[in-house]
Amino acid sequence: MTRWKIVIEHDGRPFVGWQRQENGPSVQAAIEDAIQGFSGEQVTLHGAGRTDSGVHALGQVAHFDLAKETDSDTVRDALNYHLKPQPIAVLRADAANAGFHARFSATRRHYLYRILNRRAPPTLEAGRVWHVVAALDAEAMHSAAQSLIGRQDFTSFRAAACQADSPVKTLDFLSVSRAGDEIHINAHARSFLHHQVRNMAGTLKLVGEGKWSRDDVAAALTARDRSRAGPTAPADGLYLTRVDY
Amino acid sequence: MTRWKIVIEHDGRPFVGWQRQENGPSVQAAIEDAIQGFSGEQVTLHGAGRTDSGVHALGQVAHFDLAKETDSDTVRDALNYHLKPQPIAVLRADAANAGFHARFSATRRHYLYRILNRRAPPTLEAGRVWHVVAALDAEAMHSAAQSLIGRQDFTSFRAAACQADSPVKTLDFLSVSRAGDEIHINAHARSFLHHQVRNMAGTLKLVGEGKWSRDDVAAALTARDRSRAGPTAPADGLYLTRVDY
Repeated sequence: MTRWKIVIEHDGRPFVGWQRQENGPSVQAAIEDAIQGFSGEQVTLHGAGRTDSGVHALGQVAHFDLAKETDSDTVRDALNYHLKPQPIAVLRADAANAGFHARFSATRRHYLYRILNRRAPPTLEAGRVWHVVAALDAEAMHSAAQSLIGRQDFTSFRAAACQADSPVKTLDFLSVSRAGDEIHINAHARSFLHHQVRNMAGTLKLVGEGKWSRDDVAAALTARDRSRAGPTAPADGLYLTRVDY
Repeated sequence: MTRWKIVIEHDGRPFVGWQRQENGPSVQAAIEDAIQGFSGEQVTLHGAGRTDSGVHALGQVAHFDLAKETDSDTVRDALNYHLKPQPIAVLRADAANAGFHARFSATRRHYLYRILNRRAPPTLEAGRVWHVVAALDAEAMHSAAQSLIGRQDFTSFRAAACQADSPVKTLDFLSVSRAGDEIHINAHARSFLHHQVRNMAGTLKLVGEGKWSRDDVAAALTARDRSRAGPTAPADGLYLTRVDY
């Protein structure tokens, strides 16, 4: 039996999210089916991040156990063959230690949130960015973002459906920068609450528009009340870019 | 009467190309219809580059004449409103001199060709890159590309359907560089022959794979014979990025 670690890229749009669900196609089910197509084995795939419907991944990580003896290149290429034509690709596959767990061994998750900040709607990037027409002040957003760094009670940025035991998380890094017509929000933490990045993005957008100050963001955090922070930004702009172990 | 210059971004996939045709939706017809929807005027739109089906634009330029008195912001926003939900956006609109012609006044056209160079197929970038599995040597491609620079007879890189009077064009700039998993080919010239960039990309790919040398590319050029150069790279990877005046 070999434990395989795979790195996954996918478009989030056609899927109900990472997790296998009754109500539609999931990334997890698509890959589990591809593993069965390749090996004949019915396995459970464990992902590092349980992304929502519409959320994209450039570097999701998952693991599964396979009895079949094979090698890294074969696992990657065979899974990609069986995943076609779905927009999911296995970028690499590596044999891992038996103790490796994609979800529980992760030490840091990296997310990118992309805002297209211009009058004209997206064309090539439709479904892959949040389109915000009002001119955003990236520097003000970055400054306000720094008040969220550290070990905090993120109740104000937590979805009602969140299943985490505790709302206390340590946010290691949160930056906002402009790249041409785009605003990029990068967030790193060992783990995030459900919708935390999207709720932070929706709140920081209020700062970018000049409606909120840095102090308003700090006050929203200390209120520990979801209704005190900004709205949830759409799934379209969110990317799970990397998971560290 | 005002002559309007507009800068256009579009996804090339749903269209038969720039030019109005009987056999399907074109970018030109979509924008002409949007102009009529906004102004009630039936105009002819003149584009700088007559891109093929599947070819994308980040900065196509076009012009048209409008009797209606209006302003730049209104032209841009009204056209974008009428273009929805098609993946075409007007990035900006500016009043131009009566003598301005999007096609004939252009002094330089900029194209980007994107190759995704990895084993795994594209997901988010499907239809927007050429997927090449064999590892490409970008430096060798760049070196070979330099033999195409200058005033040359590009018959070997010209589509049979090309309507240009002469196969002689001046290629100002051609670079090949790697950006992570992608190979970017940038080409600048006053004008290009039909399929010239795609034929150059298909030829340089042979160099990247090690099948052709720089001398083979130079020999293909001097042969003045389309059958002596490489195959036409797919439309997916091609972007008209900018037009200078």
